[in-house]
Amino acid sequence: MENLLEPVKVGLLGLGTVGGGTVNVLQRNAEEISRRAGRGIVVSHASARDVNKPRICKTDGIQLTENPTDVVTDPDVSIVVELIGGDTLARELVLTAIANGKHIVTANKALIAKHGNEIFSAAQKQGVMVAFEAAVAGGIPIIKAIREGLAGNQIEWLAGIINGTGNFILTEMRDKQRDFDSVLAEAQRLGYAEADPTFDVEGIDAAHKLTILASIAFGIPLQFEKVYTEGISKITGEDVDYANELGFTIKHLGVSRRTESGVELRVHPTLIPKRRLIANVDGVMNAVLVKGDAVGPTLYYGAGAGAEPTASAVVGDIVDVVRVLTSDPENRVPHLAFQPESLSDLPILPIEEVETAYYLRIAASDQTGVMANITTILADNGISIDSMLQKEHKCSINPADDKATIIIVTHTTIEKNMNEALSKINALEAVSDDVVRIRLEHLDAD
Amino acid sequence: MENLLEPVKVGLLGLGTVGGGTVNVLQRNAEEISRRAGRGIVVSHASARDVNKPRICKTDGIQLTENPTDVVTDPDVSIVVELIGGDTLARELVLTAIANGKHIVTANKALIAKHGNEIFSAAQKQGVMVAFEAAVAGGIPIIKAIREGLAGNQIEWLAGIINGTGNFILTEMRDKQRDFDSVLAEAQRLGYAEADPTFDVEGIDAAHKLTILASIAFGIPLQFEKVYTEGISKITGEDVDYANELGFTIKHLGVSRRTESGVELRVHPTLIPKRRLIANVDGVMNAVLVKGDAVGPTLYYGAGAGAEPTASAVVGDIVDVVRVLTSDPENRVPHLAFQPESLSDLPILPIEEVETAYYLRIAASDQTGVMANITTILADNGISIDSMLQKEHKCSINPADDKATIIIVTHTTIEKNMNEALSKINALEAVSDDVVRIRLEHLDAD
Repeated sequence: MENLLEPVKVGLLGLGTVGGGTVNVLQRNAEEISRRAGRGIVVSHASARDVNKPRICKTDGIQLTENPTDVVTDPDVSIVVELIGGDTLARELVLTAIANGKHIVTANKALIAKHGNEIFSAAQKQGVMVAFEAAVAGGIPIIKAIREGLAGNQIEWLAGIINGTGNFILTEMRDKQRDFDSVLAEAQRLGYAEADPTFDVEGIDAAHKLTILASIAFGIPLQFEKVYTEGISKITGEDVDYANELGFTIKHLGVSRRTESGVELRVHPTLIPKRRLIANVDGVMNAVLVKGDAVGPTLYYGAGAGAEPTASAVVGDIVDVVRVLTSDPENRVPHLAFQPESLSDLPILPIEEVETAYYLRIAASDQTGVMANITTILADNGISIDSMLQKEHKCSINPADDKATIIIVTHTTIEKNMNEALSKINALEAVSDDVVRIRLEHLDAD
Repeated sequence: MENLLEPVKVGLLGLGTVGGGTVNVLQRNAEEISRRAGRGIVVSHASARDVNKPRICKTDGIQLTENPTDVVTDPDVSIVVELIGGDTLARELVLTAIANGKHIVTANKALIAKHGNEIFSAAQKQGVMVAFEAAVAGGIPIIKAIREGLAGNQIEWLAGIINGTGNFILTEMRDKQRDFDSVLAEAQRLGYAEADPTFDVEGIDAAHKLTILASIAFGIPLQFEKVYTEGISKITGEDVDYANELGFTIKHLGVSRRTESGVELRVHPTLIPKRRLIANVDGVMNAVLVKGDAVGPTLYYGAGAGAEPTASAVVGDIVDVVRVLTSDPENRVPHLAFQPESLSDLPILPIEEVETAYYLRIAASDQTGVMANITTILADNGISIDSMLQKEHKCSINPADDKATIIIVTHTTIEKNMNEALSKINALEAVSDDVVRIRLEHLDAD
């Protein structure tokens, strides 16, 4: 087949895991991709910190440089693919590339979550596209699904397992009765977790992704600084087991819900019913559950990280950009799904205003009246109990030292009510340790 | 917010369930949709068989007609939404609309599967778009995901639960130990199944959808007449139970796989491992599992039918069309994902050439040598056994009449080898009824 159009030239910033994967996918599937795009796509220029390092991809025919500015200013390059990560140098390079009239494809969630508003505004002025499918949930085309596929819906809420490392750790803790620290060490050995695992296990990475998902779902500006973020490092095997006994599994979820008073934006460990499809998304896999008013619940599942799954999203974006290279910017899908002048100023709710159910684990001495005290405090704060379970822990020869573990699952309540109740329960003489509180979502279709 | 562009005018063919749902979604979410599309979208003209019939939607401001040709020739209408179903009148109207320069959105799988090649070719000549997201898996944006989101991949295979009626019946049979006929009658009462359930339970509806999915996944023309189709009406509670005992669940799957010698296109009941996510897609819900060479396995889940889920896909398509209304046709996503001149002539494999594993249920008299005979026949035909299970059925006082049920799960083999083996096993004197054979897929990631 003859193709009269010249191949589109792509410049890559970064030739590591995702950069190498992108080169490999573009080369291996070149014929298939040009049959779709109607045009060849070649990487013509790439930057790397050390051009002599061994790589996972062949670099024949690619001009290599250690100076990324060479790539973003190369007049032959139409599309710059940013894969260096971080949000300082990446931001500068992307803004320079935009100023030079390049379209951008990026896998950088921190960059988009923190500087997306600035970047999209610059791109808008220059008439170029910034595509970021690879920034959320790796190879799952979730940005496209929400932004285009569900364009007829009012999105009501979304909930996602959007960090593979955290999901791997929770899955191993549940299935093999292991503790957090030992699984984390294994995840680091396997390369699933970084040497500094904070971004993954403390929910910062998930918060970046949730910021992006919420923007395109609800038509609000990116507001990373307003995400409530709680990690999984304090989850114990004990809670994993009790959750299981009650019919729940613990997942590290990013949740965003539109309410009348504002948008919830929160990342935290969450009990969810075991029978939900998303509760069965295990190991390093990702999934996002999106509830639209017309479509109902929909779920998108796949690999959330790794060289080739991420490259899949990067290349999908490149093909999208190639298709609209010559189109009028007015006709493109807006970066954040909604036209820039139509973004909403709906406030982000502080966590104290969020409404959710709770799992509580209370260690109390096994004495008369404790249960009455606890349930009275909950009732006084307007919190009703869904189910309860009491476990005796005979840990001493002296019966006066006997401890009981009380597990309570509540109905939904406003978090500030729960905070007040918990401060009173913690103050009870019979309650020995601080109450463990984990949020719980039923993820009902309605 | 001021919008200088006139609203886009849509003409509807059909004001039944999906037509009414489409009007409702466009009206209810008008603000949200125009914030996304950058332009208002209104239904200006609609046809119905009886314009005086009560409807699920308000029709104020919509010009109603009983003559659909009025709609497809209305000079004010830019986009015609075809929701009348069937493939005779629908084909004529869609071709007339295209000849009149209208873009088309349709939910009609039979039309696309059987006449898509002709329709897309006409649309191509006229420079108009034909969008058909609603034709497969209702509200799940699966066409967009495969065609655009996974554009960087070579798709290796896909497998879908793409008929909600069939999935409801199989789910009830499994969970409530009910038989096919009683569940079908209930599905008809609930409105999940038509009075004539043939299209759903015999797999014709799924075959239409599979035809479309395979085309956009593999870049082949639509070839509905080559789909191997087998329904679920012969599935018995006995097989559902044995499957369960062996760790499988029976689903009615559409499967398409690219092999070196051609493309498999088949709809049939299938045993799949219970631990797979798609095995847990129950009731009327749909899901499609797509394996790309770069992304690995991905899954898309949601409602496969119903007024508003289907309307969600219809409206998503309308927004897509509105976005490219003024764009150069060369830059659009091709109808079948691949450029029309780049479609492949890869043959469709006849079912005899398909490679799959099998579940076999054999009723045999419990006499010496039967098992040896059966296993020898399988081995002679190159079929190896994965697992086996024997159940005694003492059904008579005379031990000579004792029957055994033998369940065999095989490794993968070519179907023609299995056909030969089965004809020999059925000919054994000790084998009383024809062997029950159900295909089995592990749906592995690799």
